[in-house]
Amino acid sequence: MTSVGEKASGVEPRQAVEPVRGPVVSPGERRARAAWSRISEPDDARAGALVREFGAEQALADVLSGSSSVPEVFRMRAERLAIDRDLEIAHQVGARIVCPGDTDWPEGVDDLPHPPICLWVRGPGDLALLASRSVSIVGARSSTRYGEMMANDLAAGVADRGFGVVSGAAFGIDGAAHRGALAVDGFTVAVLAGGVERAYPVAHSRLIEAIAESGAVISEVAPGSAPTRPRFLLRNRLIAALTCGTVVVEAGLRSGSLNTARTAVDLGRPVGVVPGPVTSMVSAGCHQASRDGMAVLVTDVAEVVDLLGAYGSEAAPRPRGPSRPTDDLDPVDAQVLAVVPFRKAIDATAIALAAGLAPHAVAAGLPRLALVGLVVRDGAGWKKVPEKRTP
Amino acid sequence: MTSVGEKASGVEPRQAVEPVRGPVVSPGERRARAAWSRISEPDDARAGALVREFGAEQALADVLSGSSSVPEVFRMRAERLAIDRDLEIAHQVGARIVCPGDTDWPEGVDDLPHPPICLWVRGPGDLALLASRSVSIVGARSSTRYGEMMANDLAAGVADRGFGVVSGAAFGIDGAAHRGALAVDGFTVAVLAGGVERAYPVAHSRLIEAIAESGAVISEVAPGSAPTRPRFLLRNRLIAALTCGTVVVEAGLRSGSLNTARTAVDLGRPVGVVPGPVTSMVSAGCHQASRDGMAVLVTDVAEVVDLLGAYGSEAAPRPRGPSRPTDDLDPVDAQVLAVVPFRKAIDATAIALAAGLAPHAVAAGLPRLALVGLVVRDGAGWKKVPEKRTP
Repeated sequence: MTSVGEKASGVEPRQAVEPVRGPVVSPGERRARAAWSRISEPDDARAGALVREFGAEQALADVLSGSSSVPEVFRMRAERLAIDRDLEIAHQVGARIVCPGDTDWPEGVDDLPHPPICLWVRGPGDLALLASRSVSIVGARSSTRYGEMMANDLAAGVADRGFGVVSGAAFGIDGAAHRGALAVDGFTVAVLAGGVERAYPVAHSRLIEAIAESGAVISEVAPGSAPTRPRFLLRNRLIAALTCGTVVVEAGLRSGSLNTARTAVDLGRPVGVVPGPVTSMVSAGCHQASRDGMAVLVTDVAEVVDLLGAYGSEAAPRPRGPSRPTDDLDPVDAQVLAVVPFRKAIDATAIALAAGLAPHAVAAGLPRLALVGLVVRDGAGWKKVPEKRTP
Repeated sequence: MTSVGEKASGVEPRQAVEPVRGPVVSPGERRARAAWSRISEPDDARAGALVREFGAEQALADVLSGSSSVPEVFRMRAERLAIDRDLEIAHQVGARIVCPGDTDWPEGVDDLPHPPICLWVRGPGDLALLASRSVSIVGARSSTRYGEMMANDLAAGVADRGFGVVSGAAFGIDGAAHRGALAVDGFTVAVLAGGVERAYPVAHSRLIEAIAESGAVISEVAPGSAPTRPRFLLRNRLIAALTCGTVVVEAGLRSGSLNTARTAVDLGRPVGVVPGPVTSMVSAGCHQASRDGMAVLVTDVAEVVDLLGAYGSEAAPRPRGPSRPTDDLDPVDAQVLAVVPFRKAIDATAIALAAGLAPHAVAAGLPRLALVGLVVRDGAGWKKVPEKRTP
């Protein structure tokens, strides 16, 4: 059995315990919060309440003293606690502990019903930036080439415009999103379901290393914790809470990324979904989210930025088709133009009859149309100039 | 100059003048309405007002007598009227004139600001059926194979469920929709922008013939009228008004089918759009309509039927992914299951520690999980049975 609360100084590695800046949290409290991230599962209401009420150190001492009001599993886990080992692992991978009150605490997570007690963070990225300019880009592991291309392009586009891109480092869409952000030297954050020292999936070890070098790899659970299925769902809630909005690129009807989207909605954050062919099962979840009114469609970078809202001046330009010389025509002139033939010229009366317009309206409209090069005089009549589309 | 109003009987072909049943409209009035469909363009507020106020016969007489309050173009066109020729053309192609008050008048069009004065109709189809059970399926002429397949499948599906499928007989989506309905011997209606005797586009002559044989080919303009550009837009408003709702399968950002959709919205009819890859320009208009809140996504026949609303019992079943044996698990049991290993069995205490659950909860959960075949005892411990998906 390892006693923890009292060992605020001593063998524990400095890097793991001290914050990047703004040391509001005492070393003892920080160390105890690290311990709680092993004792309790993420989203545990009881652990959060104890830490909030008594402080992490006192709550931990209460658990170790066998207070009857504390859940038994907390005591069982606290007795097996090896916080120095956890901190040593964190030290080895260059991870630090970020706590509420630290200047790089990501404020968005405080909107969760049960916010993390602390976060284990690898990498130089400042998580506080996520509160104002970030997006989660998530989706199916069994993605298509289309989905991966979209995730990559959207992530690169928003990262290039200064948005942090948060995802789960999984196969498929998540990986493509991280890679897109890295490709433009953007800020990207991977949120892991297991310990921050454990690259999962293993095949993404290099990707996760690259993220840790320039951005951040973070987890709510202590080093050495396995990425179990419930922790993936709990991790998803964190992805949604860290960011200003969530974009689901591809998702089957039961995809975990819909879970992320649902959390975002619960937190009042906007959700976008990328549409795809209805014949693709990994677009079905996206389409359903739109039908349910949970999400809006996003089809390009501008629309994602627009979704995130706070940046009015960056509102997406409304996409338009190619412009045409006939775009600004008066409706009457358009009616005139519609009946003027290309080949054989006809006179104004014939035009009036064909268009169902008053002769004086036709007489006024024809010179206007000639002025913009849409019709030409030909003898006593008029004929049309073939329309060219401007690019 | 041809006088019209007085020639209620005589040379005109009976078939073109008499309604299918329910002769509320007098032969003279019917004939005069036919004349008005040549004198005025569709959606003309003045013509509609004159016919409503004075009756079609009297309004026509007023025009011919040179009443000063009548628009000049009406007089010019009325003087050139050859209603017998129009009726003869209609007779030759087996068209009839359907007027408000006839039992096969499609009531939906009365919701338009300026309803048709009459409709020229070829084919045995009863247009009155459209009021209760119909859908417009429209879209781009420059469609993709994906879009054509979707239009065909959706049209076949709804036609098979007794819905009339209305479209514009154009290349691309329209043609695919008509063909889908015909393929299941469904009821389909083509609305033309020009005269009902003139197959447009010409390459769809056979398709339009097939529609006229079993359903209906209709137009608001008199036989011999050319399909001019303004008439296409006016035709589109009629497509929307004829049906209970509109589905746009593919549409570029400037597609005329968005015009149909906008009319449907103005008339309070639901609009669905089929999503597609964002890389396809002919899906861009569909996506924009969804983003604008003008339309909901529809991805299959059930969702189209659901869109049309009136049939509560046919509401689309919510699509679900494949079911799994773990679907109905109690959340605590799911947490237990998540930490039970596949290979090496572990005991209940180790499971409680890994899951962060009270030992008694784990002790209760393991036998329940064993009962549904998800875990098995192995010595003093438990291990997981590999999960199988049910189809």
